[in-house]
Amino acid sequence: MSKLWGGRFTKETNKLVEEYTASISYDQKLAFEDIEGSIAHVTMLGECGIIPKEDADTIQKGLQTIAEKIQAGQVEFLVEHEDIHMNIEKMLIDEIGPVGGKLHTGRSRNDQVATDMHLYVRKVTNEMIELITKVQEALVEQAKHNVDTIMPGYTHLQRAQPILFAHHLLAYFWMLERDKERFSDSIKRTNWLPLGAGALAGTTFPIDRERTSELLAFSTVYPNSLDAVSDRDFVLEFLANASILMTHISRLSEEMIIWSSQEFQFIELDDSFCTGSSIMPQKKNPDVPELLRGKTGRVYGNLIGLLTVLKGLPLAYNKDMQEDKEGIFDTVNTLDGALKLLAPMIATMTVKQENMYNAVSNDYSNATDIADYLVTKGLPFREAHAIIGQIVLYGIQQQKYLLQLSIDEYKTFSPLFEEDIYAVLEPKHVVEARNSIGGTGHQQVLKQLELAEEKLEKMFC
Amino acid sequence: MSKLWGGRFTKETNKLVEEYTASISYDQKLAFEDIEGSIAHVTMLGECGIIPKEDADTIQKGLQTIAEKIQAGQVEFLVEHEDIHMNIEKMLIDEIGPVGGKLHTGRSRNDQVATDMHLYVRKVTNEMIELITKVQEALVEQAKHNVDTIMPGYTHLQRAQPILFAHHLLAYFWMLERDKERFSDSIKRTNWLPLGAGALAGTTFPIDRERTSELLAFSTVYPNSLDAVSDRDFVLEFLANASILMTHISRLSEEMIIWSSQEFQFIELDDSFCTGSSIMPQKKNPDVPELLRGKTGRVYGNLIGLLTVLKGLPLAYNKDMQEDKEGIFDTVNTLDGALKLLAPMIATMTVKQENMYNAVSNDYSNATDIADYLVTKGLPFREAHAIIGQIVLYGIQQQKYLLQLSIDEYKTFSPLFEEDIYAVLEPKHVVEARNSIGGTGHQQVLKQLELAEEKLEKMFC
Amino acid sequence: MSKLWGGRFTKETNKLVEEYTASISYDQKLAFEDIEGSIAHVTMLGECGIIPKEDADTIQKGLQTIAEKIQAGQVEFLVEHEDIHMNIEKMLIDEIGPVGGKLHTGRSRNDQVATDMHLYVRKVTNEMIELITKVQEALVEQAKHNVDTIMPGYTHLQRAQPILFAHHLLAYFWMLERDKERFSDSIKRTNWLPLGAGALAGTTFPIDRERTSELLAFSTVYPNSLDAVSDRDFVLEFLANASILMTHISRLSEEMIIWSSQEFQFIELDDSFCTGSSIMPQKKNPDVPELLRGKTGRVYGNLIGLLTVLKGLPLAYNKDMQEDKEGIFDTVNTLDGALKLLAPMIATMTVKQENMYNAVSNDYSNATDIADYLVTKGLPFREAHAIIGQIVLYGIQQQKYLLQLSIDEYKTFSPLFEEDIYAVLEPKHVVEARNSIGGTGHQQVLKQLELAEEKLEKMFC
Amino acid sequence: MSKLWGGRFTKETNKLVEEYTASISYDQKLAFEDIEGSIAHVTMLGECGIIPKEDADTIQKGLQTIAEKIQAGQVEFLVEHEDIHMNIEKMLIDEIGPVGGKLHTGRSRNDQVATDMHLYVRKVTNEMIELITKVQEALVEQAKHNVDTIMPGYTHLQRAQPILFAHHLLAYFWMLERDKERFSDSIKRTNWLPLGAGALAGTTFPIDRERTSELLAFSTVYPNSLDAVSDRDFVLEFLANASILMTHISRLSEEMIIWSSQEFQFIELDDSFCTGSSIMPQKKNPDVPELLRGKTGRVYGNLIGLLTVLKGLPLAYNKDMQEDKEGIFDTVNTLDGALKLLAPMIATMTVKQENMYNAVSNDYSNATDIADYLVTKGLPFREAHAIIGQIVLYGIQQQKYLLQLSIDEYKTFSPLFEEDIYAVLEPKHVVEARNSIGGTGHQQVLKQLELAEEKLEKMFC
Repeated sequence: MSKLWGGRFTKETNKLVEEYTASISYDQKLAFEDIEGSIAHVTMLGECGIIPKEDADTIQKGLQTIAEKIQAGQVEFLVEHEDIHMNIEKMLIDEIGPVGGKLHTGRSRNDQVATDMHLYVRKVTNEMIELITKVQEALVEQAKHNVDTIMPGYTHLQRAQPILFAHHLLAYFWMLERDKERFSDSIKRTNWLPLGAGALAGTTFPIDRERTSELLAFSTVYPNSLDAVSDRDFVLEFLANASILMTHISRLSEEMIIWSSQEFQFIELDDSFCTGSSIMPQKKNPDVPELLRGKTGRVYGNLIGLLTVLKGLPLAYNKDMQEDKEGIFDTVNTLDGALKLLAPMIATMTVKQENMYNAVSNDYSNATDIADYLVTKGLPFREAHAIIGQIVLYGIQQQKYLLQLSIDEYKTFSPLFEEDIYAVLEPKHVVEARNSIGGTGHQQVLKQLELAEEKLEKMFC
Repeated sequence: MSKLWGGRFTKETNKLVEEYTASISYDQKLAFEDIEGSIAHVTMLGECGIIPKEDADTIQKGLQTIAEKIQAGQVEFLVEHEDIHMNIEKMLIDEIGPVGGKLHTGRSRNDQVATDMHLYVRKVTNEMIELITKVQEALVEQAKHNVDTIMPGYTHLQRAQPILFAHHLLAYFWMLERDKERFSDSIKRTNWLPLGAGALAGTTFPIDRERTSELLAFSTVYPNSLDAVSDRDFVLEFLANASILMTHISRLSEEMIIWSSQEFQFIELDDSFCTGSSIMPQKKNPDVPELLRGKTGRVYGNLIGLLTVLKGLPLAYNKDMQEDKEGIFDTVNTLDGALKLLAPMIATMTVKQENMYNAVSNDYSNATDIADYLVTKGLPFREAHAIIGQIVLYGIQQQKYLLQLSIDEYKTFSPLFEEDIYAVLEPKHVVEARNSIGGTGHQQVLKQLELAEEKLEKMFC
Repeated sequence: MSKLWGGRFTKETNKLVEEYTASISYDQKLAFEDIEGSIAHVTMLGECGIIPKEDADTIQKGLQTIAEKIQAGQVEFLVEHEDIHMNIEKMLIDEIGPVGGKLHTGRSRNDQVATDMHLYVRKVTNEMIELITKVQEALVEQAKHNVDTIMPGYTHLQRAQPILFAHHLLAYFWMLERDKERFSDSIKRTNWLPLGAGALAGTTFPIDRERTSELLAFSTVYPNSLDAVSDRDFVLEFLANASILMTHISRLSEEMIIWSSQEFQFIELDDSFCTGSSIMPQKKNPDVPELLRGKTGRVYGNLIGLLTVLKGLPLAYNKDMQEDKEGIFDTVNTLDGALKLLAPMIATMTVKQENMYNAVSNDYSNATDIADYLVTKGLPFREAHAIIGQIVLYGIQQQKYLLQLSIDEYKTFSPLFEEDIYAVLEPKHVVEARNSIGGTGHQQVLKQLELAEEKLEKMFC
Repeated sequence: MSKLWGGRFTKETNKLVEEYTASISYDQKLAFEDIEGSIAHVTMLGECGIIPKEDADTIQKGLQTIAEKIQAGQVEFLVEHEDIHMNIEKMLIDEIGPVGGKLHTGRSRNDQVATDMHLYVRKVTNEMIELITKVQEALVEQAKHNVDTIMPGYTHLQRAQPILFAHHLLAYFWMLERDKERFSDSIKRTNWLPLGAGALAGTTFPIDRERTSELLAFSTVYPNSLDAVSDRDFVLEFLANASILMTHISRLSEEMIIWSSQEFQFIELDDSFCTGSSIMPQKKNPDVPELLRGKTGRVYGNLIGLLTVLKGLPLAYNKDMQEDKEGIFDTVNTLDGALKLLAPMIATMTVKQENMYNAVSNDYSNATDIADYLVTKGLPFREAHAIIGQIVLYGIQQQKYLLQLSIDEYKTFSPLFEEDIYAVLEPKHVVEARNSIGGTGHQQVLKQLELAEEKLEKMFC
């Protein structure tokens, strides 16, 4: 079949080339964005009198018919028409005759595909923000059930200080909040309209780009046509934000996996989020968090992939840029599934509060509080720290935890110790004592929860 | 020498371990941020009565003395003190005696190092924004000299349509504008204060985090202490923004290299930005743009490096996170040099306007305009395109450019051609004809320049 | 439907989980490797008397039937059966009844999937080696046609010294030769058999792993069962080798793009490897090399993706490792297409020998040879270099190339110059003069061609 | 100061350019390789009569003097001399006068720097192989002490089947063995000599490249001069191998961190490999494995960095390629430290054998063995698996492990159970039962140890 651009060529495209360079197998995902952009374009063309109003109407109706057919699954996309743009244009001409050829007046595939991508990225960015919110809601809900659950807090995977489980969960709330903010900020830059940039230099037709922008709800038009067709920053920015988000998800996943181990037993994931083993009948594997952790790799890979594509590319459009699509499609797919699984997995997990409490009752994670105790009695912190180091060493050697040492034993380390030290060492007291903003103290965590809920509400106003 | 945390240990640290785990060789770059944070912290401690006012004053003065000594190069940092925090604290105790030990009251190295990093990233982000602005100014200046310079515009490195060189330069202006916007947006998230989060759970001392935040000009405090010490999003975001910026720089560099080739000869870089060959006496190599293009690799590498570090890390602080520093230090170094070189290199390059014009006069880059010409005479664009394809093929075979074909030759392809076609084909006319927003037409480029200058002015209000 | 591992579970798997964790959509690509491995396994089970010989025969026949059905496209893979292994096992039981359940005796999905991947990677590695050879053949063929074609050699994209085009093409021959060697070396490590490692610890059945290894033509069995199921080095190594190969392809592509520009016009790609523009009728774009250059990104991304997946994973199998497949499948696809296109594209390109020769006749790329001329007359190289630098500068100012300067002009720079300098400066002489091994001199290039052809022949002995 | 290449230039290099493009700050690491290469080159020049024998001797002695001075720390490298090559050449001329200028006869900086890099990479590759061997030795030694230590084997971080700790340690032996093999294979491709390739095209002097190759112990010379100066495959291959090695190290590190947690308590690292906390006196943090895990990021980053640099670079040398050095220097540094720490850390760790044994005595990790038990009594594996799944579920509900269920309870699930089931379920028996090659059975692990020791011995023959 003859190509839409074939006039100057004397030979057919090599079949293998056609297949390798065609993008229709994946860019058909942009079908509705392509039609949406075309409708806005042709509406503007008609309004500006660049093509007759009746032609514009005919084309618009033709495009709507095609959209309906695609929706209904009645359409077959063909590799020989290269990409979604050419496929739809061919269908249009089949549908309404040669007048369909007027649709491409005053635009090029370069600004057209850029527009489709902007529309797509804007849409999925908003979707991601909504899905992240669902995960935040699940975190808040689970946190509310655990405002009295004491667990060990860790640094270096070593017990550090007792904290509330609610506090731990909410740490992820704020990471996700920043993710949303980043995605939200990125929309500002996604919301530039490239249409009207033509192939690279603008168009000779008296188009009204601001009208098209208005029809498509963009906030501005690209002030430079070369930039309009060459820019893929908004895709890079999406992928960078997605990578940071996946970093967060991988961290939470790692913790869920560790917490699900027989050694920790802090949580149990619902059966519906686990699978078994073909060989070991006792196994219940935390497949979902493992897979989420693993899928971090492909998102990083998609980011580095596009960065590599764009490195050192001269202006304006180059065929390399066709490679901007599969990476983001795969990333959106990955995030979509990850977020949709995370929310119910968090909501349905069983929190083994007793195990958590047993843990903090059998360690030295209250050691800092004795140091602070001595400081309030006048010792410089550094000296207090050194003394407690020796007490802990003594405890390990004697196989006693800090609550199990007698006051006489304490006094051999410092005369400042009094009976009131025991109250200080109770896990609950240790938690309560961290009562400045952002601390794990009960009051502070309640305030934090309030703040989190405010954020969620603001979202939906 | 005994470690500040050594009380619980029975053996000295392995010498090799000390060297491998010590960060002082590079984190000394944070010395002033560390002191700045400590001064704010101790001021707050004094105001809150957590330590006596006099002690706070003594410590503050001690810290200022140390800052001066560092500035004067009178200080030697020691590997045995591990990192910048311990080094400065040791100096402080040497300077003012054991009272210096009170500085660490109510904080930990975990929130301290996070605070230093926030202060550092905020500072360098602002510096980058300023340096980018200088490059934008150079672009605007060079563009102003070239509002009448016609050059070939390219897609696929093939001549596409004639454009103004000013237009081409300004494409980079808008890329950089988005870079600035991204950096600027990121400050919102850098501007959260971690100090007061303690090791991970908050502190038992009645500190006033909002006061510290105010003293250090942060916009908010982290609402969650675990998040405060574990979060390195702001570093990732800086690196992601730096990677996108380097993508832009690599594209401009690639173009400068191509334009400097003997085959293009569109520009000549100033001698001061080039070097020669040890073996080929005639060589003048565009070293600087080549190196900038090459340095893109290390910035991408630094991004992927930190993403890898953070992947799957459980909360809260882990030693892995020490690896957050060298990558950003190296990135800042790279960007700083790149931007400082780019501005004068753009400003001093010689633009070979004649060569550019010769180029557009000897190609088929005016072909689109004949297609548009036929469209305005009523042909659907697709049909016009096919006709012009054949004209171009005929031209290539006859070795004639489009302005060299006779009207009779034109008429054999379509009866719609008239004498007025020749005016349409003049490069200057081709440029002028692209006169909608963002197009390369002279008026549009002047408007674009105005808009660019407005952006630059707003920057400095 | 009940899972093969479901006994211990009280709830069904969440539908979304099933879809997100299922790998059947892509691991069906391993169907034949899976059956091949199973046939070897069951043969060994029968031979060792672990299952009755008749059962082994029944199972083997059942598996062959399934292979034929798959080949014939009569099979539907189901998401509810998770992966290719479970799908085939289900089909087997449907085909031959409960005896099919004996196939899984003495193995686990962990060693089974590892075996499939080894078989797959070995197969595609050999395929890549063959495809690379085709490209080498095309390079050699094109080089043979151009052993007398003089072109400018470049460093820094600046003309450096004249070379033969054959020499330039052959540079890629050697890059590809190393690629083949790397792929070939990697087979040593791919050729370890994991089957028999069980889930992680070996099996209680008296299997004969060496027999299975022999049946599948592996060179050795993994000496450690944990390593056998956890190792994905062979996939990483394939991806690393693929990345280096794509680096080479991207470099050649970049050159083809530059050479195809109107400014260089050194080659013209066949129409069948180019496409046109939807808007600019004159365009003939080097789409294929551009796309190959662009596809480098995804291969790098796949490498970094799997590195990220494996970073910090504890032994033995984790679900994250399911992410080892799509990246290599996509990479194989990419390389396969790239290599299949490269060979004919090189073979069919038109080399514009006249343009190349014109180029070397109009530059200073013979300058090194005057320096060498003075050295042979006794001057230290460094002094000679300085003198020629001044001659070139003089030439640029006078707008004369080196062959155009008079002997008197030469003598003003050094009395050592004689009339014989002009012979030295002829491009052909300049090329000929580089006559040590590996140089661009005609004789050397012929020897190099011979060496290259020897390598190609050795390949097929 | 005037540049060695400055003749053609009318302006000095911009100061900032000089600093940004100079490589002397890091390439001084190549000083001895540079001198080694120069001595071989000048020896060959003398032997071939290209320069007088006496001059060759003088230069060689001069170079040796410089080497001694550098060794003695008496030398200052200057940024104004750009790189190590120019610095040394300047020193040489200062040392022996203008005759030093003859050293550069018949070579260029392009082939010189490539030669230095080959010599460097060959050296460090051999060093890495030796250091890896030390780690393997530590693993074997620790394994020998633990051939009777039973621990839980994990998949998905869930207890899977009991294994020997020796078996687990040896899994890493084989990963490292492959790393060594990969490094060793890469030497084949590192061992090509570029010297004599000149700037890109060979040289006009009648040099004897094979003699230089012999003097420097290379196995072959590059057959193509363009490839010789453009090839950085050997650096990429080193970085790829280093990345795979770091993947292994990160996995072992992750396990050491998990095993050191209070929940696992399987090992305790020696105090000398841990550090404490500035705030929590009880902390003993596994800093070294954490840092090793973290340092994986920078090695991946260095790999992706250089891949990015080389993507799409036209032949031959470009300034971008200067960026090949810092990444590999940093990688070598990182690996060197990591391997030097790993060996003693493994050797000195305390293995808590009792805790490991307690773990396997309190779980369902012997479940597979009941399934295998039923299979040997004639049940198809799949049916047996389903039955055991129900037994495990029953056990969990009744809070009984498998050894605690009565024979009557067993018989309710299948009449095939007899008293002999209890012997089968003993952890020691479970381990022993896995007695085919590569399994965790005691005999197999002893054989594996033997094999490992053979590998180590072969290394040093």
